[in-house]
Amino acid sequence: MSDRPLILITNDDGVSAKGLKELIEVMRLFGDVVVVAPDTHRSGMSNAITVDHPIRVTKTIEEEGFQVYKCTGTPVDCVKLAFNQLLDRHPDFVVSGINHGANSSISIMYSGTMGGAIEGCIHGVPSIGFSLNDSDHEADFSRAKIYVARVFQQVAENGLPPFVCLNVNIPKGEIKGTKVCRQTSGKWVEEYDKRTDPHKREYYWMTGYFKNFEEDVIDTDITALESGYVSVVPVNADMTCYDTFETMKSWRF
Amino acid sequence: MSDRPLILITNDDGVSAKGLKELIEVMRLFGDVVVVAPDTHRSGMSNAITVDHPIRVTKTIEEEGFQVYKCTGTPVDCVKLAFNQLLDRHPDFVVSGINHGANSSISIMYSGTMGGAIEGCIHGVPSIGFSLNDSDHEADFSRAKIYVARVFQQVAENGLPPFVCLNVNIPKGEIKGTKVCRQTSGKWVEEYDKRTDPHKREYYWMTGYFKNFEEDVIDTDITALESGYVSVVPVNADMTCYDTFETMKSWRF
Repeated sequence: MSDRPLILITNDDGVSAKGLKELIEVMRLFGDVVVVAPDTHRSGMSNAITVDHPIRVTKTIEEEGFQVYKCTGTPVDCVKLAFNQLLDRHPDFVVSGINHGANSSISIMYSGTMGGAIEGCIHGVPSIGFSLNDSDHEADFSRAKIYVARVFQQVAENGLPPFVCLNVNIPKGEIKGTKVCRQTSGKWVEEYDKRTDPHKREYYWMTGYFKNFEEDVIDTDITALESGYVSVVPVNADMTCYDTFETMKSWRF
Repeated sequence: MSDRPLILITNDDGVSAKGLKELIEVMRLFGDVVVVAPDTHRSGMSNAITVDHPIRVTKTIEEEGFQVYKCTGTPVDCVKLAFNQLLDRHPDFVVSGINHGANSSISIMYSGTMGGAIEGCIHGVPSIGFSLNDSDHEADFSRAKIYVARVFQQVAENGLPPFVCLNVNIPKGEIKGTKVCRQTSGKWVEEYDKRTDPHKREYYWMTGYFKNFEEDVIDTDITALESGYVSVVPVNADMTCYDTFETMKSWRF
């Protein structure tokens, strides 16, 4: 058995995505790599799990220090299956991405990439979700990869607290450096395109644009990204709002 | 137009679930009700959204102060469609459930019920997810409904901060009262049942059990629930881990 660190990789753009291949290339520098990724595009799947039907897994690559499995489930299913069934040793890191498109601000809620990373930290392993602010299928990841390596090395060196993972978003084009940020307050608006099918029945396509509630605020992930910096947001899988906790104790239920 | 509050209801057990009917009954005491719920069971869907295919919506009930729509999407899709397309006025509250089965501790991550409630608070409206600790399709909600009303009244009276909603879990059987709690630290383990199909191909069913990392700790939602109390956890849609935030600024990226 190898004594190199074992790095589990997943994503939500599917096993064939360019961003996944680029992430594998970086991670093989640092350890043995096992990929468990959805067999197809599973964007917007958040932390969803597959409870109503069975999941199938196929091993597609088996080399020394490098295995790839594709799976019919969500990114969270991929991570759970890896930990519970597929790996013969506990992974040392879980890394998800590189997503084609940013997962900054409230998009973390819907992101399958971040679903995979959050599931990694729930399993007690330092975990990172990486996204590039470029949705193109043929996006250029060359600059991004340098920062993927840097952030990974810092996590390997410093570790992460229990139930905390990182949401890392990388700008398109020139990169000025890295900033530790908080999640920008904002939401998606005008989210549907209403159409009529040839049988005169209505249907809706998800669309819309992002509304930033705190433009020009320095320490948010979107400001960092828009200024050419890699944004690193520490993300807590404990969603308790401790600020509200004490106030609410005076409520008369 | 009615001057009663408008309450938007969703769930993840689908439009036919008993828990939804019980929640409607309680909420009609407090205001006009619009239900937008998945046409079928969508458990484990978390905050997932439907991006790859169109969504259809059908109105099934239209009465004075009461409308029901069923939708082919996830609970989050239901809430988004209500705000963006279906309602002619902004709802005053979003209420999700009553789920058949608890959504305490880390289960909040995977819960479609809580996905609906979190989406409500992202839209700027006081929002609550209710779950009963009983997965039976014919579960008895009679005691639970009293506490659903009480928690709702407290939220109506006190409001909730921006991007904060409530995760409310209700015990099965006798109820001793209500406790404001934090999310229990824990995770699901041994999560898959591996089987072989008639064509000798392997497949996996999700299963497993919950492991509590902090048994007998007083202020957690699971301890409250197991002691016969309704647990009320304030949930933050800002997932930034502020404790880690400052420490990480010294990292050398």
